[in-house]
Amino acid sequence: MSIPAGVIGASGFAGGELLRLLAGHPEFEVSYASASGRREGPTEPPLAAIHPGLRGSELARGGQVLARTSVSTAARRCRVVFLATPPEVSATLAGALLDAGVEAVVDLSPAFRLTDPALHQRWYPAVRRPPGAVAVYGLPELNRAKLGGARLIAVPGCLATAAILALLPLSGLPGLSLAGVVIDGKVGSTGSGNRVRRSGLHAVRSGVVAPYAPAGHRHTAEIREAMAGRALAGREPGGGERPLRLGMSVFGIDLVRGLSVAVHALTGEDAGWAGHDADLTGLLRDTYAREPFIRVRDRAAEAVPLPDPKAVIGSNYCDIAAFHDAEAARIVVVAALDNLMKGAAGQAVQACNIRYGLPEDAGLTALPIYPA
Amino acid sequence: MSIPAGVIGASGFAGGELLRLLAGHPEFEVSYASASGRREGPTEPPLAAIHPGLRGSELARGGQVLARTSVSTAARRCRVVFLATPPEVSATLAGALLDAGVEAVVDLSPAFRLTDPALHQRWYPAVRRPPGAVAVYGLPELNRAKLGGARLIAVPGCLATAAILALLPLSGLPGLSLAGVVIDGKVGSTGSGNRVRRSGLHAVRSGVVAPYAPAGHRHTAEIREAMAGRALAGREPGGGERPLRLGMSVFGIDLVRGLSVAVHALTGEDAGWAGHDADLTGLLRDTYAREPFIRVRDRAAEAVPLPDPKAVIGSNYCDIAAFHDAEAARIVVVAALDNLMKGAAGQAVQACNIRYGLPEDAGLTALPIYPA
Amino acid sequence: MSIPAGVIGASGFAGGELLRLLAGHPEFEVSYASASGRREGPTEPPLAAIHPGLRGSELARGGQVLARTSVSTAARRCRVVFLATPPEVSATLAGALLDAGVEAVVDLSPAFRLTDPALHQRWYPAVRRPPGAVAVYGLPELNRAKLGGARLIAVPGCLATAAILALLPLSGLPGLSLAGVVIDGKVGSTGSGNRVRRSGLHAVRSGVVAPYAPAGHRHTAEIREAMAGRALAGREPGGGERPLRLGMSVFGIDLVRGLSVAVHALTGEDAGWAGHDADLTGLLRDTYAREPFIRVRDRAAEAVPLPDPKAVIGSNYCDIAAFHDAEAARIVVVAALDNLMKGAAGQAVQACNIRYGLPEDAGLTALPIYPA
Amino acid sequence: MSIPAGVIGASGFAGGELLRLLAGHPEFEVSYASASGRREGPTEPPLAAIHPGLRGSELARGGQVLARTSVSTAARRCRVVFLATPPEVSATLAGALLDAGVEAVVDLSPAFRLTDPALHQRWYPAVRRPPGAVAVYGLPELNRAKLGGARLIAVPGCLATAAILALLPLSGLPGLSLAGVVIDGKVGSTGSGNRVRRSGLHAVRSGVVAPYAPAGHRHTAEIREAMAGRALAGREPGGGERPLRLGMSVFGIDLVRGLSVAVHALTGEDAGWAGHDADLTGLLRDTYAREPFIRVRDRAAEAVPLPDPKAVIGSNYCDIAAFHDAEAARIVVVAALDNLMKGAAGQAVQACNIRYGLPEDAGLTALPIYPA
Repeated sequence: MSIPAGVIGASGFAGGELLRLLAGHPEFEVSYASASGRREGPTEPPLAAIHPGLRGSELARGGQVLARTSVSTAARRCRVVFLATPPEVSATLAGALLDAGVEAVVDLSPAFRLTDPALHQRWYPAVRRPPGAVAVYGLPELNRAKLGGARLIAVPGCLATAAILALLPLSGLPGLSLAGVVIDGKVGSTGSGNRVRRSGLHAVRSGVVAPYAPAGHRHTAEIREAMAGRALAGREPGGGERPLRLGMSVFGIDLVRGLSVAVHALTGEDAGWAGHDADLTGLLRDTYAREPFIRVRDRAAEAVPLPDPKAVIGSNYCDIAAFHDAEAARIVVVAALDNLMKGAAGQAVQACNIRYGLPEDAGLTALPIYPA
Repeated sequence: MSIPAGVIGASGFAGGELLRLLAGHPEFEVSYASASGRREGPTEPPLAAIHPGLRGSELARGGQVLARTSVSTAARRCRVVFLATPPEVSATLAGALLDAGVEAVVDLSPAFRLTDPALHQRWYPAVRRPPGAVAVYGLPELNRAKLGGARLIAVPGCLATAAILALLPLSGLPGLSLAGVVIDGKVGSTGSGNRVRRSGLHAVRSGVVAPYAPAGHRHTAEIREAMAGRALAGREPGGGERPLRLGMSVFGIDLVRGLSVAVHALTGEDAGWAGHDADLTGLLRDTYAREPFIRVRDRAAEAVPLPDPKAVIGSNYCDIAAFHDAEAARIVVVAALDNLMKGAAGQAVQACNIRYGLPEDAGLTALPIYPA
Repeated sequence: MSIPAGVIGASGFAGGELLRLLAGHPEFEVSYASASGRREGPTEPPLAAIHPGLRGSELARGGQVLARTSVSTAARRCRVVFLATPPEVSATLAGALLDAGVEAVVDLSPAFRLTDPALHQRWYPAVRRPPGAVAVYGLPELNRAKLGGARLIAVPGCLATAAILALLPLSGLPGLSLAGVVIDGKVGSTGSGNRVRRSGLHAVRSGVVAPYAPAGHRHTAEIREAMAGRALAGREPGGGERPLRLGMSVFGIDLVRGLSVAVHALTGEDAGWAGHDADLTGLLRDTYAREPFIRVRDRAAEAVPLPDPKAVIGSNYCDIAAFHDAEAARIVVVAALDNLMKGAAGQAVQACNIRYGLPEDAGLTALPIYPA
Repeated sequence: MSIPAGVIGASGFAGGELLRLLAGHPEFEVSYASASGRREGPTEPPLAAIHPGLRGSELARGGQVLARTSVSTAARRCRVVFLATPPEVSATLAGALLDAGVEAVVDLSPAFRLTDPALHQRWYPAVRRPPGAVAVYGLPELNRAKLGGARLIAVPGCLATAAILALLPLSGLPGLSLAGVVIDGKVGSTGSGNRVRRSGLHAVRSGVVAPYAPAGHRHTAEIREAMAGRALAGREPGGGERPLRLGMSVFGIDLVRGLSVAVHALTGEDAGWAGHDADLTGLLRDTYAREPFIRVRDRAAEAVPLPDPKAVIGSNYCDIAAFHDAEAARIVVVAALDNLMKGAAGQAVQACNIRYGLPEDAGLTALPIYPA
């Protein structure tokens, strides 16, 4: 079996990573690749000039270039199409591709992530989704069962992936109610895409701890939606779920790939959870015992401080650990991943493997490159 | 006037920075420099081999080496001595130097930072302080008036400096009560000192976001002590101050110099503060209007995300900005500084300038090196 | 078929890379792993603490530790043993393992690289080789035919690999005689091993361009031996080969993985070669047409400057390009590789694949991680 | 005395560095600053947004912006003007400013560096110099005597500065004749200016060793002109100077500031120089004994490998050392500097100090920031 797959938006970092993964995938085969159409300039650059790592692969043979996108050509050549395009472009292409007969669209943009139309309208007012388009939020650890046979998959944001994976286990702590959650994220420069601007220059971007989103980062909405209904903030006297108070701040740091989130969860005044690190580690292990890409880190057993994005580069792993700060009545969960892998292309392939009933780790078995 | 000054512990990063600053200081003159005594090996390395930047300065002329410390020589040659030594060493040397007639000791270690003996005993059980030794906590923005003529100055920790400077203004917000404070710190490798160990190797330490202190960092105690009595958590019905719930997590990142802290302050349920970014910026400006080394950043007026340690390297500035996340009822204050300057040697010189009645910025007027 | 393989010296960077490659190899299986025996300290650290990337692999299951080396255990469990040990250790172990019945030893140290005993004695006086031990110099592009069935393979040095691959094609240029060759190498910190010392600390090693071997780097001898007999310097009137004048300078730069060498070849006064870039590119292509791991870069066809180690990280590729500087009668050949892959572990596996008649790229098909 | 000085092209990296230096200069005062006029967009950004380090200085008070250049305003306000503009702009402005009565123009671009009009025409065909404009090549170590009272000073290129300072001493070696010189330069990203393009993005530019100019770098012409007449290649039988064969290759590396050149000088076949490292160090010391900004490094006396740009960041020093590779009949001279200081703005101020008869190190006494 070989499933012909397309990548649209192949000139960006996530697009290049999709090509790299699909080039080594046992079942999917790249049958189409194009630029998103926003690139300027008269000439089409050779694929190997944009993604020099691909040189030597079949994909880049013969000076292969990235053409502009044609929906009809893509639909003719592909059973599944990955979109690594800006959300405005994805919103248009997804419906067109499905209408043209593509079996499945896996969208890496935020165009289809938020379920609530009002929330979507608030956070992405410029992104007009086609009526009736409903996607499965493609976080396997949350939605595995819904992915089988899905037609439209919305791959979660990189920060949202890490934050949700850090928060999910807490809903399993009996008696826990949270007074508030603060998420502090640190991300590398590939997280900002390859748009060319002065603040992205090496001389300007190196050595920074840049608070580019101290509040109001768009991924916050995803996290809130994913955690709704989990009663992390406890219940009102009348029985209804209390809204979880949750804010996120994001910092750009001097890293190319990789991302770390610290989820600081303040426990409620009355229901201060009284466990310790080992309990939390056990909770994480229980939650993720069968997950192929979650590695629970145990501070007690390991000499070096972890989780750390450095230990996952090039792999689809999300490393995770939890700590209890009794004095501040705070639980800290730290999650680290490669933003182009588990935070984008790797997760897209993982979700698509599930959608097609393939082994979940097909094409994703590479161990991290360490140290890199 | 020229005040002879000594630097003990001159082989470390903070010690080297002290030498650099004193070499360019208009009033202090380096009359003594020694290693802390813990360095192993039979030979004394030339100063310029340890601190190659000092080559060409008077200090390094003639292959000047760093001898082992002699209290009597130091006392004979110096009116003031800076200690950039481990806390156990400082605890011993400070008293000996004062007894031997040194006018003032400025200690960069944590040996004398905590006022409460019980707290000190809990956090630094191995550091035996001489009986009766009381230091002024050398944060000029907090304790300027107490520094004049002080005999023993405890220079605050680098993270504590940034966190306290971020928190102080909040006590001026009428009606604010905080449900909890989470501090998320990011620090470069010079913050860990120059102890040689595998986890500090370039190949291992590059590219990390290492949660080396997810909870329980020692600077937390300093911050709590400095903020006590400020009623940030509001008052009990009986009128007493409620204890401020405050936790800190610290991450090592791929930076040599520099540090950023995000102070996430969750406002109380009932007294949710209802202002916005501009109010907070005004508050910061009012608080620090006369401070020579605090630069308040205004997100509204600036294109690039700030404060950022990148913008303060080599200078004694602490850059600071505040943001309001209304949806999460959260105030975020971000403070950035050069950990070897405002976080160590620069602050030591600033405090010592005040102690001697010199202009507060003497020897500290250099602008940051940007981009570096 | 499954070939049991051992890794001795598994605690270093090259050792960890060997484990990573063998964990994903279709034919070799790690049946033994040990530390080199020089590590100090009473406890044996878990494998995952040293190589956190291996977490989640079979190798690190159950808190697997690295024991001290036992030749008899290794020989009982392995058909082939990789040595990632210091040369003094390799010199001892190689013979012992072969005597104990191991089929093949693949040594990554310089213990067996130099064929000429006098040269070896001069460059490695402390490394006593067992009498009669003769290794195949394991550069497949040079010695592929000799590798089949070899008992002892000496994996070339990382700089030597790049330099020889850059120089080899020049011997195919008709009429070329070289007045001198200067090699300027730039290497990352994993090239220095994981010995713990102050100069290797992140704060000290970041941002350097450190001329740690301006002349006399040991790999120079390897390069000279490999190029002997190729008449690159032309022939004496009497017909004998003139000695090639060749010097190398090596700089440590701020890179974890990766290496680049520039081979500056000055053509002879009389026989100034008169071609241009395209001729040189053609020459490279002809030389390496069938090589699976050499990617010839063509400046004319590519927008971004190449070859660059950034484009090969995590892969076994050596990228190479040549340029003609007519004005200086100079040919510049630039070669870039990942020093832990084609410069160490990857090349070791490639050579061992050949030795066992496996597909040459078995276990080595991963594309580079880009950008990393 | 206070000399009013202007900076045109103040929005770039060198322009920002000029402002930083002049802000701390005891004699020059910034009386005018403007952008070069090539910046697009309707609004003028605040100075502190472009150069965040300048925040807190007088220059950036009150939201000071960078206006477009006006020659008449500049001439009215300044006695001396520094041009940190592209060469086409400098070529036009320099004459206009001098005609309008400015006493001196110090140009950091290559517009006026080459003396020979034919050479200029060949290397900078697009740069039309005004007829009759002759500049002093502003390398104090070469041309100090000519700088007094100069009207137009051409500040050397950063690579040329390092290379010439490395080569100059060799002309003092009796009996030396060079068969060829190869210069291998490594430069940080500020060396490429702040033009916004994909190859300059942090994600793309980090971790590179990019051979962006394997041959034909424009600074090569400067070096050749400066070394002409020094008979480094020996003399023809008829007495004329033999042309020095000299080529340069330049690599972009992962550094923001800083530059290192290795000058590999192959000695002539017959006149192979037979000294050693100590002789070369003595030669360097003799040559530069009275130079305030040249630090000769002595490998014998220093533990850490030097010279290294890391040891000069933020200062005007050029560190230099020489080594003899007897086996390859090669002398290696390594020179390192901060490309924005001794390679640009620092050298401009140094030359201008001389021009005005000020102490040569006025405004340039800051020691390097180490480690940064």
